[in-house]
Amino acid sequence: MKTSAEENASTTIVVPSGDLRKVISDALTANGALRANADVQAANLVEGELRGHASHGIRRLAVLIERMRRGLIVPDAEPRLEWIAPGVMRVDGNRGFGPVVAYRAINEVVSRADETGIAMAAISNSSHIGMLAPYVESIARRGQAAVLLTTSEALVHAWGGIGASVGTNPIGIGVPTMREPLVLDMSTASVSMGKILDYAATGRALQPGWAVDALGRPTIDAAAAIEGGAISPFGGPKGYALGIALEALVGTLTATAFGTAVVGTLDSEFPATKGDLLISVSLERLGLTGMLPALTDYLDQVRDSGVTGPADVPGDRARRAREGRATDGVPIDDEVWALALKYAEGLSHD
Amino acid sequence: MKTSAEENASTTIVVPSGDLRKVISDALTANGALRANADVQAANLVEGELRGHASHGIRRLAVLIERMRRGLIVPDAEPRLEWIAPGVMRVDGNRGFGPVVAYRAINEVVSRADETGIAMAAISNSSHIGMLAPYVESIARRGQAAVLLTTSEALVHAWGGIGASVGTNPIGIGVPTMREPLVLDMSTASVSMGKILDYAATGRALQPGWAVDALGRPTIDAAAAIEGGAISPFGGPKGYALGIALEALVGTLTATAFGTAVVGTLDSEFPATKGDLLISVSLERLGLTGMLPALTDYLDQVRDSGVTGPADVPGDRARRAREGRATDGVPIDDEVWALALKYAEGLSHD
Repeated sequence: MKTSAEENASTTIVVPSGDLRKVISDALTANGALRANADVQAANLVEGELRGHASHGIRRLAVLIERMRRGLIVPDAEPRLEWIAPGVMRVDGNRGFGPVVAYRAINEVVSRADETGIAMAAISNSSHIGMLAPYVESIARRGQAAVLLTTSEALVHAWGGIGASVGTNPIGIGVPTMREPLVLDMSTASVSMGKILDYAATGRALQPGWAVDALGRPTIDAAAAIEGGAISPFGGPKGYALGIALEALVGTLTATAFGTAVVGTLDSEFPATKGDLLISVSLERLGLTGMLPALTDYLDQVRDSGVTGPADVPGDRARRAREGRATDGVPIDDEVWALALKYAEGLSHD
Repeated sequence: MKTSAEENASTTIVVPSGDLRKVISDALTANGALRANADVQAANLVEGELRGHASHGIRRLAVLIERMRRGLIVPDAEPRLEWIAPGVMRVDGNRGFGPVVAYRAINEVVSRADETGIAMAAISNSSHIGMLAPYVESIARRGQAAVLLTTSEALVHAWGGIGASVGTNPIGIGVPTMREPLVLDMSTASVSMGKILDYAATGRALQPGWAVDALGRPTIDAAAAIEGGAISPFGGPKGYALGIALEALVGTLTATAFGTAVVGTLDSEFPATKGDLLISVSLERLGLTGMLPALTDYLDQVRDSGVTGPADVPGDRARRAREGRATDGVPIDDEVWALALKYAEGLSHD
C-alpha cells in the first residue's frame, strides 16, 4: 500500500479492500463506535467502492464522523424493533448507523418471512444505508426475494416542475438463482448529484436530459442545475412517476418525511428523516425453490442475446467490478485516503 | 348513441360509457359468461377506454371472445384461492377472466392484510388483467397501499441485446391520500406494441429510442422494429434493468413463465402463462392513517411546482381523462364498435 498524501495534486492511489475496511473501521472506533458496529458500517462503504460507486464509498466517511461528533449518529444505539402486526416490524433506529440497523431488521424479517411467507420492515430514525445492492443480495443468498426502498433528499424535479421536490429514491430488488443472485440497485434520478458537482467543478457540459435550471428549463450548465435547478428523473415522465410513487409509498409506510422535509443523509446538521422499507418473501416457505432453474436459464438466455458479447443482467456489472477490485485493490482519491488515515489515528482534531 | 358502422372508412364515434359497458357485457354473456363475471370484465375494458388507454379497451374484446370460444378462457371458472402461508395466497385462476380472478384475490388479500399488516397474492393461470390502475386505486380507496405487478409477452430487448426477451412488465402502485389516491400504472417499455403497429400501418417514422431492428440497432422504421426487432425499454439501461428484475420477481413468485415463454394475453392460441403479483399493506392495521394529511400536502406541493400549471402526480392525468369521458362519452373506432354490437347480438358467427 502506497500513499501519495504528501503531494498536493489530487491523484488516485490503489488500496487493498482489506486495508480500506480496517482504516474506516479504525476511524469509526476512534470516534466512539464499538468495533462490531464500526465493522458493519465500514464494510458498507467498502461495498460502495468495490462495486464502482465511489459516491457511496469512503467519501462518506467525513460526514459520518461529523454526524457522530454532533450526536446526529449514535453509533452504538440500540435500535427498537417491534412487530406491530404478524407480518410487519417497525424499526426505530435510534440514530444508529444505517447498515447496522438495516442488518438487524433483515435478520428479523428473513426469519419472520420463513413463517409468514412475506414480511416487511419499516425503518425510521436511522442513518444513510448506502448502496441497496449488498442488502438485497445478502437476502437473496438466504433464499428469499427482497425489495428494498429508501427515500432521500429532494434533488429531482417533478415532470414539468420547477425546483427539486422528489428524492433520488432508489429501488433495490434481489432474487435468488441457481448461481449468483439477480441484484437490481438503481436510483430513479438520471444522474447523481455527485456527478453534477463533479461536472461543475471541472467545467464540463452536462449531458442533455440530466438536469433543469431554476426556471425548469433543460440545461447542460452544471452550475445552473445546482443553483436553484434540479436533477431530472431517469426516463422522463415515467421515471418521475415511479420516483414520486416510491416516495409516497416509503414515506407513508415508514411514517417519515416527504420531499424537501427529507434531510440528514448528505448534511451534518439534521437528524435523518428518511425512511427505509424492506419486503422479503421466502421461496422455501412458499415451495418456490423449484422455479430457480427456469429463472437461471432465462437470465442466461437474456445474456446470450447480447450483440457484442453477453448482455448484462442486473448485478452482473457490479459483480465484475467487485471481483476486479477485490483482487486488484480499490482506486481512492489520495486526499480522501489521507483524511481517513488521520481519522483512524484519532488525529483529525489536531 | 349514433354509429357509422355502415360506412366503409374507419372513423371514430363517441359512445356513452354505460352503453359501452352494456354492449361488452352482452357480448361476453352471448358467448357463455354469467352476467356477474361479464360485468366485471366489461368494466375493466371500459376503464381502459375511460382512462385514455384504448389498447386496454374494447379493442381487446375480439381476442377475449376468440379465447372463450377456444376454451383458453373459461369465463365462469371458479378460481382456487389457497393461503399457503399466513401472509401469502396462491391463486390458480383456472383460466378465468383476469379481472374476475384479480378482484377475488384482492378481497381476500385486503382482509388478510387487515390482520397481518401485509399480505400477498400470487396469481397464475388467469387471463389478461388489463390496466393495473383500477385495481390499485380500488385498494387505496379501502385504505391500503398496494403494489401490483404482472408479466407480459416478451416485446422488449435486453440493453445491448438482439430480439425481444423481456415483457413490457408494468408496475402499479396505489397509495391513499386525504382525497384521490396516488395511482401509478406504467409499463417498463418505452412505447406499446399497439403504437408501433399503428405507426407501421400509417407509414410514420418512430421516435428515436422507441425500438431496435433485427440486428439490435436503434431504428425509426416501424416495420424493422416489428420484423425481428424489439421495443426499447423506457429510460435506457435502467428501464431494462427494472423490467427484467420485475420479470424475475413475478415469474418466480407466481411460478409462471419467463421471457418468450410468456404467451396467452395477445394471442388466441395459448393458455395464459403470465403471472400477477399483488402486495397490499393495511395503513389502519399499522396505525399509519395519520400520515395521510402530510402525504396529501406533499403531493399538492409537487403539483404547485409546475411551470405552466399544476405538475401532474401519478393518477391525475388519467383522472382528468376519466372524468371527461365519463361525462362526454368515449371515442371508439366505428369498426371496433360495430363488431362489438354484432358480438352482443350473438351474430358474429354469421
